[in-house]
Amino acid sequence: MKVSAPATIANFGPGFDVFGLCLDEPRDVIKVKESDEVMVEVEGFNVPEDPEKNVASISALALLKMLKAEMGFRMKIIKGIRPKSGLGSSGASALGGALALAKLLGVENRELIIKAALEGEKAASGSAHGDNIVPSLFGGFTILKSLSPLEVFKLDVSFKLVIVLPKVEVSTKRARAVLPRYVPLSDAVRNLALASALISALKEGDIEKAGKLLDDYLAIPYRKPLIPWFDNVRRAALESGAYGVSLSGSGPAMFALGEDLGDIGKAMVEAFENEGIGAEYFITKVGGGAKCSDV
Amino acid sequence: MKVSAPATIANFGPGFDVFGLCLDEPRDVIKVKESDEVMVEVEGFNVPEDPEKNVASISALALLKMLKAEMGFRMKIIKGIRPKSGLGSSGASALGGALALAKLLGVENRELIIKAALEGEKAASGSAHGDNIVPSLFGGFTILKSLSPLEVFKLDVSFKLVIVLPKVEVSTKRARAVLPRYVPLSDAVRNLALASALISALKEGDIEKAGKLLDDYLAIPYRKPLIPWFDNVRRAALESGAYGVSLSGSGPAMFALGEDLGDIGKAMVEAFENEGIGAEYFITKVGGGAKCSDV
Repeated sequence: MKVSAPATIANFGPGFDVFGLCLDEPRDVIKVKESDEVMVEVEGFNVPEDPEKNVASISALALLKMLKAEMGFRMKIIKGIRPKSGLGSSGASALGGALALAKLLGVENRELIIKAALEGEKAASGSAHGDNIVPSLFGGFTILKSLSPLEVFKLDVSFKLVIVLPKVEVSTKRARAVLPRYVPLSDAVRNLALASALISALKEGDIEKAGKLLDDYLAIPYRKPLIPWFDNVRRAALESGAYGVSLSGSGPAMFALGEDLGDIGKAMVEAFENEGIGAEYFITKVGGGAKCSDV
Repeated sequence: MKVSAPATIANFGPGFDVFGLCLDEPRDVIKVKESDEVMVEVEGFNVPEDPEKNVASISALALLKMLKAEMGFRMKIIKGIRPKSGLGSSGASALGGALALAKLLGVENRELIIKAALEGEKAASGSAHGDNIVPSLFGGFTILKSLSPLEVFKLDVSFKLVIVLPKVEVSTKRARAVLPRYVPLSDAVRNLALASALISALKEGDIEKAGKLLDDYLAIPYRKPLIPWFDNVRRAALESGAYGVSLSGSGPAMFALGEDLGDIGKAMVEAFENEGIGAEYFITKVGGGAKCSDV
């Protein structure tokens, strides 16, 4: 069984812990077959091969435990998503591991698969959040209302976007630790208005309008000390014609919507370099979610 | 000039201070003609006839001041929306007053009309909120992102709903005073998810799904002491088959979505009566916004 689980953008502007966008690229590919033992082999970006420490195998083992299935597996991970990039690297691996085992066992229950993947996500980032796992599974744009029971609203959207990936890391644990427990009611209202308007714009396929609604008052302001370059890179994107720009998840990756995505990407890379941070950009499009095939 | 300004439902479940729904009925009708003096005459529900205290004429005078127009007017108000009902009574009068004068003067600028109407709303409720004025002007379902500059996202929706109006009053000032300045981030996220999913459901015309998304964690929980009957009336609505039910604005009116709206209305009226509160229900539909005509 082979599963290809795509990278994702969590939060997507105003949708902290709720919105997720599935990307077409990059992807983690996870091949798995039944075995007497439990073994993990990794190609591509460096992640642990210890089955107790690898996010994909932790999720796979969690699924087996939930199903009370006693079996081993050999897992090969082609890790195409850079860890700690803000592109849902652990979420994709977690989903891929759980989904591969589920397919091997003929299990279709999405809620169960996500529940298992959350175990891997929790091990990687310290908290069991589904805002990368869910879009990586469903594809398109997702509104995560509830994990248990699983309530997801999916929007079929289609557009290209530019992703800029700097050579720095932002710890998801730390990015979560800096958030306050209470926020001003006025900020809650502002994000609610932005998020609602964004859904309306996306439903209408108006990407320019959607791009202008990517502000956030719930998470990014508190995370600024961890991403001191954010405002300058954002400004560079807007000045080069981006409709809008924001952080992908808790960063460091950023994304922008616009017309001339290459120009925008170059301007953002340059802005990172002005901060003394190497960066690269790539253009991708909204993806259709994890794909499974018999090897 | 004759303006008919409809009642509205502010908040509409999770959209505190952001969402508004325009109703087809009831309406305030405001007739106005140029005059040397400033005179207000009221029919229907009882509101002040003193031009300095009447919401519609305060808004009309505010518009004249903004336009530096020196003129008087005779205004006749047929007040069809019960004051302090939670159905945007002051918002409709405020909009009607400003809009009637604007039409008389050939002014089309919506932002200016709303700005003038906010003066009337402020006099009535103590704060200049636009979540009744905006849907009464635009019609349909509105997402109010910003008043200045005016940024409104309008959804063309079409459905019937039942409104239950109890014989109690809730002071908008007090309903606002009980709100906290800070709310849990987790509640902000829950409302954001509900509100976003609601927009998605409304865009799809799925009223059953929309009805199931009318919960609120930002305002109603804090307002419970002012609406001690809320939970019982809500339960009665759901038990009689409502898809969902919530408070209209800060109440006391409530509304419900569902199939058998008459049955739901009766059950809600009965629940109010069990609390010792008289109530009536009526069924209406989404309205198209304020209408203007030459008298």
